[in-house]
Amino acid sequence: MKGYEKIDTYIDEMLDQNLEELKRYVAQPSISAQNLGLKECANLVKEMLEKRGFKTEIMATDGAPVVFAERKGKSDKTLLIYNHYDVQPPEPLELWESPPFEPEIRDGRMFGRGVSDDKAHLTSRLHAIDAILNDEGDLPCNIKFIIEGEEETASVHLHDFIRKNKDKLKADACIWEFGGVDHRDKPMQYLGLRGICYVELSVTSLGTDVHSGLGGSIFPNAAWRLVWALNSLKGQDEAVRIPGFYDDIVQPSERDRELMAKLPDVEEEYKSRYGVQDFIKGLKGGVDLKMEEVFTPTCTICGLTSGYQGPGSKTVQPAFASAKVDFRLVPNQMPEDILKKLRAHLDAEGFSDVKIEFLGGEPAARTNPDGPFVKIVVDTAEDVYDTPMEIVPMVGGSGPSYPFVHDLGLPVVTMGLGYPDTKAHAPNENIRIDLYLQHAKHTARVIKEFAK
Amino acid sequence: MKGYEKIDTYIDEMLDQNLEELKRYVAQPSISAQNLGLKECANLVKEMLEKRGFKTEIMATDGAPVVFAERKGKSDKTLLIYNHYDVQPPEPLELWESPPFEPEIRDGRMFGRGVSDDKAHLTSRLHAIDAILNDEGDLPCNIKFIIEGEEETASVHLHDFIRKNKDKLKADACIWEFGGVDHRDKPMQYLGLRGICYVELSVTSLGTDVHSGLGGSIFPNAAWRLVWALNSLKGQDEAVRIPGFYDDIVQPSERDRELMAKLPDVEEEYKSRYGVQDFIKGLKGGVDLKMEEVFTPTCTICGLTSGYQGPGSKTVQPAFASAKVDFRLVPNQMPEDILKKLRAHLDAEGFSDVKIEFLGGEPAARTNPDGPFVKIVVDTAEDVYDTPMEIVPMVGGSGPSYPFVHDLGLPVVTMGLGYPDTKAHAPNENIRIDLYLQHAKHTARVIKEFAK
Repeated sequence: MKGYEKIDTYIDEMLDQNLEELKRYVAQPSISAQNLGLKECANLVKEMLEKRGFKTEIMATDGAPVVFAERKGKSDKTLLIYNHYDVQPPEPLELWESPPFEPEIRDGRMFGRGVSDDKAHLTSRLHAIDAILNDEGDLPCNIKFIIEGEEETASVHLHDFIRKNKDKLKADACIWEFGGVDHRDKPMQYLGLRGICYVELSVTSLGTDVHSGLGGSIFPNAAWRLVWALNSLKGQDEAVRIPGFYDDIVQPSERDRELMAKLPDVEEEYKSRYGVQDFIKGLKGGVDLKMEEVFTPTCTICGLTSGYQGPGSKTVQPAFASAKVDFRLVPNQMPEDILKKLRAHLDAEGFSDVKIEFLGGEPAARTNPDGPFVKIVVDTAEDVYDTPMEIVPMVGGSGPSYPFVHDLGLPVVTMGLGYPDTKAHAPNENIRIDLYLQHAKHTARVIKEFAK
Repeated sequence: MKGYEKIDTYIDEMLDQNLEELKRYVAQPSISAQNLGLKECANLVKEMLEKRGFKTEIMATDGAPVVFAERKGKSDKTLLIYNHYDVQPPEPLELWESPPFEPEIRDGRMFGRGVSDDKAHLTSRLHAIDAILNDEGDLPCNIKFIIEGEEETASVHLHDFIRKNKDKLKADACIWEFGGVDHRDKPMQYLGLRGICYVELSVTSLGTDVHSGLGGSIFPNAAWRLVWALNSLKGQDEAVRIPGFYDDIVQPSERDRELMAKLPDVEEEYKSRYGVQDFIKGLKGGVDLKMEEVFTPTCTICGLTSGYQGPGSKTVQPAFASAKVDFRLVPNQMPEDILKKLRAHLDAEGFSDVKIEFLGGEPAARTNPDGPFVKIVVDTAEDVYDTPMEIVPMVGGSGPSYPFVHDLGLPVVTMGLGYPDTKAHAPNENIRIDLYLQHAKHTARVIKEFAK
């Protein structure tokens, strides 16, 4: 791919200066879970964008503010870039080799809380824009940034914000906040996220815990009620028994299967990494295992609590029991609908005493793997990484991509500087400087090719 | 009842002196759960018994030692008295109004850890023996004491000790460690205890917890395995599904039903005290509720643990899950047999991955409510308490009475100084001094009438 020599050289030469900017950004704590430093960090982001000639606003939500920025370019195409300025809490502090908010470069890596997830993604992208502006004096297309402050606390106000600002956010394509290479250093393109509906089910059967010798034969037991209610949700065949649960599902296509088949096998890796003896549903590996992992919805018990949980025995009949349950959804299951069906099912099965608390949800969203924007991102990646980008049509996790795909109607691509040892959410979070440079170069190419 | 004036006067007059002895006994911590002060306390008990002319030995077990004592009397009948010198841990300390091991008398009550359960039972009984010796110079019958140090940790070595010392413990009747009056100040005779088989069920499905977005569709989930295994044990009809579980049960007799019918109704009390809305199995109250409470075996979930249990949501697929399960048994179900049937059932249902840890058990045991020794205890109680003693043929709780009833072949009666606000196992444990005196007087009568 020609025409990128000057841009690449600029990116290489300006690295130290750009890393200094990243250090300043990482040094500003911005912990959404603790409402710490969010305003200060939003102001810093605004300053960073204004330095590049972006018209920038800090927009209020019912939670942390969103930074919105826009700069016009030569073509009338518009690229929307999504990032977040908030980070995970740094604890446990004693496991960090250098303080989490004093970023440090060691062995070709930069360490600090939030450096990978996802502060360096933003500065690396700004670095690409700097290189383009240095080369051309102007942007080749319109670029908009939406940078939220609640990604690490489930983006609870983002969907609403997007729905209210559809005109402002109007664009033709979207770059997601993260991306990266896998263990083979292959750049990966993750194109779909499952949805989620997370609930807490709870039962209160008595006013107080009671000695099990007394009430066992005659009092309702909260733990038993919960076990029976859970059992009614899913049987040993792994089929979810909630009527209508599978109704709206769009099945994966032959093309999805073809793409999944191209990806490396996971059987041995999962067995050794997670200590799996046997997969469920009789799965043995190969493409079936990979397909099942991401294209089926789940009903997962994430936690159980009731009564006595200490060592030895305590003879108590619990008055209270609760379970955390997480439904992973596939297109076109909607969390609100699943919630309604769950309530109706529990009522129909005689479990009106089981309370449901909705703890968050979002629908699944996918981007067409054969769309033109994906092709640009994949082709330019090969030019930078010297190996083809691999396409993963769907992953098992969830994220707030639904409003981008469905409210704004955008193809959403992942690209970034993540790698398997990046330690996002963990102590010693870090980025590799070589991948930082590659992401900047890749971003510059995507912007320029997209603008054509 | 005549002939007790001198004995009663002596008991009244020597109260202060006897309470001093009780205080010294309570002041000696003897916490079996923490292996604290047991040897010292056993020595103190030995000293107290030797003072009354008992030939006393401290006998080793695989746990805390047993104090055995014997004094011959005029008749060749032998009464065996069972007590324990260990107490519950005193925590939470901040809730005590006076320090747990500094016994204090306030408002006609003595406060201290273990005073009711069951140190005062022993000293009150020794007080009765003092009064008889003062009156007659000798005991009217043989008396043996078996005083263990592990009652508060499930008497794990008692059954074995009794089996090994059957000759030494040979007797004609047994007085149990506790007893008392109910909320109406009526002396109660509790004649049967259900058995128990307490297990912890656990499942390990993976080598580590896994993000629920990753493994939910393809990895075995420990919490689900546990829920399904538990559901296989008991359904919503409350019937235990373990094959053979009900095989050995001896049904209660018409006489049992007649005795239960005489006892006060519990429906309203349970509803207000424990916040029960509806009893299970469609029970409405009356004698059916009372019968069901004690004459049916149970399968009670006492605790559930798995995965994430904190506030909000965490998307994790748990590698481990466990449940505490308590089976209350009725005659003639045996814990070892239930354990075997439980294992066979889980295996047959495909739950060989569910581990069973046996945390303790003992069979049920009953004493004939119409036997001659019970009649003596009931008749003498009326003389002391001025109201008839009421007979409860069976209670829902469990205790180590099986070896006394079945290995030694003894009728076992309950009599004592407990009352509803005695706070055994709780902060501010206490006894009422008036009930202390009544128990001593009652004991003196039982010994003398039994000897005839």
